[in-house]
Amino acid sequence: MNRVEIERKVLSENDRIAAGLRGRFLSQGTLCVNLISAPGSGKTALLERTLESLDPQRRVAVLTGDIQTDNDAARLRRYGFPVRQITTGGTCHLDARMISRALEDSTWGSLEILFIENVGNLVCPASYDLGEAAKIVLLSVTEGEDKPLKYPSIFLKSSLAILTKIDLLPYLQFDIERAEENAHHIHPAMEIIRCSSATNAGIDRWNEWLAKRRQEILRSKPEFETAGAS
Amino acid sequence: MNRVEIERKVLSENDRIAAGLRGRFLSQGTLCVNLISAPGSGKTALLERTLESLDPQRRVAVLTGDIQTDNDAARLRRYGFPVRQITTGGTCHLDARMISRALEDSTWGSLEILFIENVGNLVCPASYDLGEAAKIVLLSVTEGEDKPLKYPSIFLKSSLAILTKIDLLPYLQFDIERAEENAHHIHPAMEIIRCSSATNAGIDRWNEWLAKRRQEILRSKPEFETAGAS
Repeated sequence: MNRVEIERKVLSENDRIAAGLRGRFLSQGTLCVNLISAPGSGKTALLERTLESLDPQRRVAVLTGDIQTDNDAARLRRYGFPVRQITTGGTCHLDARMISRALEDSTWGSLEILFIENVGNLVCPASYDLGEAAKIVLLSVTEGEDKPLKYPSIFLKSSLAILTKIDLLPYLQFDIERAEENAHHIHPAMEIIRCSSATNAGIDRWNEWLAKRRQEILRSKPEFETAGAS
Repeated sequence: MNRVEIERKVLSENDRIAAGLRGRFLSQGTLCVNLISAPGSGKTALLERTLESLDPQRRVAVLTGDIQTDNDAARLRRYGFPVRQITTGGTCHLDARMISRALEDSTWGSLEILFIENVGNLVCPASYDLGEAAKIVLLSVTEGEDKPLKYPSIFLKSSLAILTKIDLLPYLQFDIERAEENAHHIHPAMEIIRCSSATNAGIDRWNEWLAKRRQEILRSKPEFETAGAS
């Protein structure tokens, strides 16, 4: 088997496990979102502001991936929701098997929202389906307007782009309209939210987006499950 | 052959080509440096300031890697030095074969300095030797102090870390001493330069670092070549 065939086999095995996860999330009414960005674009900070804004009674959990350290899990645990670190030990992305194992080991039961914070990498995580309802790409305004054109795959596969750190715009030469045009050039129907975890700008819109997507999950839940859950 | 064996074979083939490149650079007295960072950390901006500061008569060239677009090459060509874009078309890193082919296709002859700007990715490029004299990791101060701990491989393999965008420090909660401690925790002997491509801070130190490393290359050049070059 050559390298391309091996890659194909790994991805098809991943897709099989991801399909199982997607079925499980759907039957449990769980909205699962997969947050992807470059290192340091603010995935953890956005999740901190999000968890802080949520009613602590809600059934919400986080899986956070890193090559090394459990720094992100430690930051996120302060908000009272269950958080699990997946340390990949060198692997540049999360895969469906890592998610499946982490969920098997947990006692979380059925969740309303599962946030997955992927490894900081704008390339490789785009290839791995984790059974999520939506991939979400974060782009910090410190990174340059041309990133959607340079990393088209993740912008094509994400339902939503979050432009982060907009509080820094006054100090940067960053043309935010141009960045949005570039994202729409790659993915015309892409939704975009401008956000700052320093000022909380955009957090309400992001929570509305999550609520709307969760309703869609509940509406598409198989009949027999909806009946049982009422 | 399983996936791990295939990976090993690919890397050993890469190492073979990289060794050839390294021999060629050494015999020609070329300092080759491989710049690696997350997307948007300022590799291209640093190279712009560097090329701008160099005597246009010097034999200096740039190979710049991206998944898509030749934006970076277009930016860098304005400084009068030869620049070639390597568009990887999806591959998340540059490998030695891409460098070898780009050099074969060029008419650059022997160079004083070859800058390689890798694909924006803090993970995968760390595994690929390109025959360079030094890997250099860039970390933007917008990205967080813990990045050396989260991405240890590239900090371990790099001779030099450049902390970029330090002009933004007044607007960030970024503890630069802590970031440097973290880098030294992973790699105690690592040199670090604080830099801003907006204010040109640190560019002189970076040019001194390059000059010193070039002298080391010339001193280690095989005898017969030194005689011929005088």
